[in-house]
Amino acid sequence: MKPVASASRRPTAVGRGKKMRTAVLEATIAELTETGYAALTVDGVAKRAAVHKTTIYRNWKDSTNLVADALASHFAQDIPIPDTGAVDSDLRELARTLISTMTTRAGQALLVTVLSDAVRIPQLAEVKSALFGDRFRRAAIVVTRAIERGELPADTDPTELLKTLAAPLYFRLVFTGEPVDESTADHAVRVALAAARAHALPPV
Amino acid sequence: MKPVASASRRPTAVGRGKKMRTAVLEATIAELTETGYAALTVDGVAKRAAVHKTTIYRNWKDSTNLVADALASHFAQDIPIPDTGAVDSDLRELARTLISTMTTRAGQALLVTVLSDAVRIPQLAEVKSALFGDRFRRAAIVVTRAIERGELPADTDPTELLKTLAAPLYFRLVFTGEPVDESTADHAVRVALAAARAHALPPV
Repeated sequence: MKPVASASRRPTAVGRGKKMRTAVLEATIAELTETGYAALTVDGVAKRAAVHKTTIYRNWKDSTNLVADALASHFAQDIPIPDTGAVDSDLRELARTLISTMTTRAGQALLVTVLSDAVRIPQLAEVKSALFGDRFRRAAIVVTRAIERGELPADTDPTELLKTLAAPLYFRLVFTGEPVDESTADHAVRVALAAARAHALPPV
Repeated sequence: MKPVASASRRPTAVGRGKKMRTAVLEATIAELTETGYAALTVDGVAKRAAVHKTTIYRNWKDSTNLVADALASHFAQDIPIPDTGAVDSDLRELARTLISTMTTRAGQALLVTVLSDAVRIPQLAEVKSALFGDRFRRAAIVVTRAIERGELPADTDPTELLKTLAAPLYFRLVFTGEPVDESTADHAVRVALAAARAHALPPV
């Protein structure tokens, strides 16, 4: 993380120590997973992180900012972008990592909490949309490299391909409740590549 | 609905009148949408449907049976199975109907309530899985007919194709929060057909 960019958003947090920041953000994720957004309090987060409430208010202003920052940190860390030299293995690795973050009990609880609260709470809906958008932007390089290597048609939209890859994983996990494993990942990769190669994933 | 099949499951309900049944099931969906599964009570449903509590207990035994039945009725009604004579237009119609049921405020609230409660409540998770399974089984005929007409490869798995069609719609609606409209439906159809024609949707 670039200190300058962080500092511009949270002037005192960096000065007060990265440790405090990490503790507070992790406590926020834990509280969010357990209680949901609506029931989350700065008090609860402070107690769990063993910091004073005023430290949180000084650094994050309110619980919405705190949750937005915690989710952004959480989602930014969890999916490293692969660069194996081939699109098949890059996408397989991406899909498998996504699955392993989602299938932990905590990961699934967090996901569904955020989803259900986001229906009623506009700020959280925005945070959620921004997080997904950010994830797709970060991973787009995998598709861009594949196009440059001639592995995929030039008319392939990176975000559309990544959504085609991710959608069936989320769908199985959250909607149909079927098991999601490595063969699910590989299947999703085959479908996404077939669609791209049939020119069915052009920019929208 | 076949009276014999209904009668075997709920002996007195049919005798007491279809009107009562409809009123109670609709009240259950309304309560579920507003309060969620955990907070739903037979009392609340009875008041809303203007029937006596004992009528509900007599016909459904408990609130879990009631919710399972209400969701089954609701989901069974909402997606008619098209038969236009061509796979493209059948799937487009299917996807568009699915979207129109999901994008109403009530439809979306119900969906997310069921999802979030299902994480914590095993019986509801089973109901949810059964409902999705049932929907896919009912719609499979669309793909089977397409295979018979030679529009799709014989190795196409109907359920896999329907999941490939549905997943991006649910994904956009519930996860990324992007708009979901007729062009989303058409795009999902193109991707699913491309995958099937590339033999990427064989039976699992």
